[in-house]
Amino acid sequence: MQKHNFSAGPCVLPKEVIQKASEALLDFDNGLSLIEISHRSKSFVDVMEQARSLALELLGLEGKGYKALFLQGGASMQFLMVAQNLLEKKAAYLNTGTWADKAIKEAKIYADIIEVASSKDANYNYIPKGFDIPEDLDYFHCTSNNTIFGTQMKSFPKSPIPLVCDMSSDIFSRTLDFSQFDLIYAGAQKNMGPAGTTLIIVKEDILGKVSRKIPSMLDYKVHIDKSSMFNTPPVFAVYTSMLTMQWLKDLGGIKAIEQENDKKARLMYSEIDLNPLFKGFAAKEDRSDMNATFTLVNEDLKETFDTMWKEAGINGLSGHRSVGGYRASMYNALSLDSVKVLVEVMNELESKA
Amino acid sequence: MQKHNFSAGPCVLPKEVIQKASEALLDFDNGLSLIEISHRSKSFVDVMEQARSLALELLGLEGKGYKALFLQGGASMQFLMVAQNLLEKKAAYLNTGTWADKAIKEAKIYADIIEVASSKDANYNYIPKGFDIPEDLDYFHCTSNNTIFGTQMKSFPKSPIPLVCDMSSDIFSRTLDFSQFDLIYAGAQKNMGPAGTTLIIVKEDILGKVSRKIPSMLDYKVHIDKSSMFNTPPVFAVYTSMLTMQWLKDLGGIKAIEQENDKKARLMYSEIDLNPLFKGFAAKEDRSDMNATFTLVNEDLKETFDTMWKEAGINGLSGHRSVGGYRASMYNALSLDSVKVLVEVMNELESKA
Repeated sequence: MQKHNFSAGPCVLPKEVIQKASEALLDFDNGLSLIEISHRSKSFVDVMEQARSLALELLGLEGKGYKALFLQGGASMQFLMVAQNLLEKKAAYLNTGTWADKAIKEAKIYADIIEVASSKDANYNYIPKGFDIPEDLDYFHCTSNNTIFGTQMKSFPKSPIPLVCDMSSDIFSRTLDFSQFDLIYAGAQKNMGPAGTTLIIVKEDILGKVSRKIPSMLDYKVHIDKSSMFNTPPVFAVYTSMLTMQWLKDLGGIKAIEQENDKKARLMYSEIDLNPLFKGFAAKEDRSDMNATFTLVNEDLKETFDTMWKEAGINGLSGHRSVGGYRASMYNALSLDSVKVLVEVMNELESKA
Repeated sequence: MQKHNFSAGPCVLPKEVIQKASEALLDFDNGLSLIEISHRSKSFVDVMEQARSLALELLGLEGKGYKALFLQGGASMQFLMVAQNLLEKKAAYLNTGTWADKAIKEAKIYADIIEVASSKDANYNYIPKGFDIPEDLDYFHCTSNNTIFGTQMKSFPKSPIPLVCDMSSDIFSRTLDFSQFDLIYAGAQKNMGPAGTTLIIVKEDILGKVSRKIPSMLDYKVHIDKSSMFNTPPVFAVYTSMLTMQWLKDLGGIKAIEQENDKKARLMYSEIDLNPLFKGFAAKEDRSDMNATFTLVNEDLKETFDTMWKEAGINGLSGHRSVGGYRASMYNALSLDSVKVLVEVMNELESKA
C-alpha cells in the first residue's frame, strides 16, 4: 500500500535519493561502504565539496562572499553558535513561536536580547509585522517558517544590521532573494536530507567581530578554514543531503519545486477553507506552504477521521500538542498526489457527516 | 575481490550491520524508511533506548549511577563540553598526543589546565607513567588510545578526582573496570558505528557543580533529562551504532572480542618485530591493540610494498603524517584473516628483498 508521509520532520525524502543512499551503504567506493571509508579520501572530500557548492548554487549565492558549512548538532546548536559568533552587546529577535523562543533563550546566555515583536498573544498563529529593527544592535534574527504553528514569513524586513534566519523548515522550497540574508541555517531533516547535519550559509565579512574566545567547534571561521572538515563530518547525512540537493537541481531547482509546493498548498488550504468540518489555525496571510495546521470544528469526529486517514495510508498528520488538531507537512518530496489523497479523505468525511 | 580495510576511522564495520542499515533505509517501519520517520515515533524511541541500555550493559555499568547519551559533534565537541560541565577552577590533563593536546586547548578557554605529564619529547611514542594527580583539581582527563601514534594506556592511574577518559578509538575493544571512570566519551566511527554520533557515559553525581550558565545543547544534564532526545538526534548514526552494539553482544560481548583483538595484535606485532624490513614506532609496553604503527627500515622499498598491499585488497594502511610509514588499524570488525593477509604481504616483501 502506498504511503503518504505528512510527518513534520524527519520527513519524506525523494524515493530515488533513499534508493541511492541504501546502495552506497553496500558499495560506495570500490567495494567499500560509504560509512567505512576515510572522510579524508578523495571520494568523500568530493561529496563534501559538491554538497557545499550545490547549496550555494541552489540559493543563487555563488561568488557573493558566502560560505556553506555542513555541521552537526541541528538548528538547536545554531541557536548558541549564532550568539557565540555574532553577539557582542545586544541583538534583536522576532518571536514567532517555539523555535524562535529557544533561540532567544540560548542567546541570552551571552548578552542582551530584545524581542522586536512577538505573536505569543495569539498562540503564535500569525507573523508580527511593522516592527522596527534598531540600527545599533549586532544582528536581527528571525525564523522563516514555524512548523508547529504553520506560519511562514512571506517577506523579510529591510534590516540595517546583519540578517540571520533559521530556515530549517522551508529552505529550498521557494524563491527568495537569499542575498538579503547574512547568515542562514537549517537542520537537514525537512527539505534537505536525514537528521544529523545542519547547513550554515554565512557571509564571511560578518565574522570575527566579537571579543570572546570561541571554542573551535563553535567557531564558524575555524570550520570555514577547514572546508567544513575540521573534524570527522557526519558522512552519511552529508552524502544523502548532497543527493537530495542534486535531485532538486535536476528537477529544475527551487523555481520548479516552488510551483509544485504552491499547487500542494493551494489544494490543501482550499479544502480547509471550503470544508465546513475543518478550521485553519494560522492567519490566512501568514499560512505556511510547508505545514498546514487545522482542527476539526466538531471534536466528536476525531475518531472517525483518524481511522479514515490512517486507512488511506496517511501518516504523521497529528498536530503538535501546542496547537492540537492536525498538521499536514508538505515538504519538497511530498507529492501532489499525497495531498490529493488527504483532501479526498476530508471530502469523504464531509459527505459522511 | 575481498577488501581488507585497515582505515583509522571511519573504518570497517560488521557486514551484517551494514546490510541491516541498508535495508532499514528502504523499509524500517511499515514501509517507511528509517530516515523518514519521526524521531518521536515509538519505533525510533525504542532504538534510542536500546542503544543507551546496550552501551551501559556492554560496559558493565548498569545500575551504577551512570547515564548514556548519544549526541552529535564528535569527540571534538566533547573537548569543550567536558570543560563546560566540569571545569570550575583547574583540571589535570595527561598529554599523550594530538587528541589530548586538542582537548587541553579547548579546556583552556574555560579555566586553568595543568599537564600532569607529556610524551611530546619523543613524538608521543610512549605513555607517561608515575605522575601525580593533585587532589584539589576538578578532574583528571586522559586518552585511552592514541590512533595517530599507536599507543594505548594499559592501566589507568588511581585518581583522587573524577576520572574523564576519551575512549574514541578503543571503546568496546577490551575488558576494563569501567566503573573507575566518571565520564567516558567516544566518537562512534571506530568500534561503534558510522560517523555522526558520540557516546557519552557519565556518572550523574559529578554534574551540576560548576557555576557557569551552560547552553542547553552543551549541558549533559539537559540531555539526560530528555533521554538523549533534547533535539532531533542523528537517527541513522544512532540506529547503526545500536546494531553494532547488538552484534557485539551476540558475539559474547567485550570479553569475546577482546580475545580476537588480542590475536590480531599479537600476530601483527610479532611480524613487525621479526621482519627485519620493518620497525615499530610505539614503545613496546604501550603498543595499541587497535592501531599498529610501523615504518620501513629502508624507504626504498616503499613503492614495492605499497603496490603489494594494494594488490592484496588492503586499504587505509598509510600512516598519519605526524608519524609517517604505516598504520594498521585493527578495530573490532576487522577480521583476523585481514591481518593474516597483511602479514603475508610483509613476509613476501621480506622474501623478495
